[in-house]
Amino acid sequence: MRTDNSPQAVLLAAHGSRVTESNEEIEALAGRLAAALGPGWLVSHAFLELARPSIPDAIDVLVHDGARHVVLVPYFLSAGRHVSTDIPAIVAAARKRHPGVEIETTGHFGAQETLPKLLAAMVSTPATG
Amino acid sequence: MRTDNSPQAVLLAAHGSRVTESNEEIEALAGRLAAALGPGWLVSHAFLELARPSIPDAIDVLVHDGARHVVLVPYFLSAGRHVSTDIPAIVAAARKRHPGVEIETTGHFGAQETLPKLLAAMVSTPATG
Repeated sequence: MRTDNSPQAVLLAAHGSRVTESNEEIEALAGRLAAALGPGWLVSHAFLELARPSIPDAIDVLVHDGARHVVLVPYFLSAGRHVSTDIPAIVAAARKRHPGVEIETTGHFGAQETLPKLLAAMVSTPATG
Repeated sequence: MRTDNSPQAVLLAAHGSRVTESNEEIEALAGRLAAALGPGWLVSHAFLELARPSIPDAIDVLVHDGARHVVLVPYFLSAGRHVSTDIPAIVAAARKRHPGVEIETTGHFGAQETLPKLLAAMVSTPATG
């Protein structure tokens, strides 16, 4: 999909929380995602509301840092209004601000086909008795 | 871990939403989890708030249906108050109601070690251009 040597970027977009630790979990997860993707990727995180950075701000930073292809991952369990309306509107506005940049969105996290298998694995290792 | 022939039960415990479709996503996911676990498991779903069935009601139904070992899976992305306080209190109360039943809790969904790998796989298959 890439036709040049500019870095590919990933933006992990979460809801955001009033609880600092929850937001820090997202930041840490973005770091672990960067490790999973390996070198050559710019990985960032952002929040739809209640926390910073915002999704538009994070996209602008990635583009400023040289990204010409951004993949936004909506880190939401269900396809509510945030996934169906709010994030697409933010992406549409970002595309207008950055006409030379390809901005894509994955399906939301909760729709991934592999989740039942992952949940089944969790059941076999309960944490507390 | 089982010492008898009673069915093992799994309860997928989600937050709950005012949006019906979001709650239906949870019900469907519980069905796919049941398929992933295979025969011999009772699989149910419940909501912490905003939707039915409640977590206590769902536990009571599983026990009524013969479960003597229930594994609750907190389907939450971050370890906020719901995960750290609300669900443990519900589980403690359920254990008092059902002293002959083993009720366990897995870690919350967002803490699973495999999530970064799953997110990395999502990045390689964006849904929209």
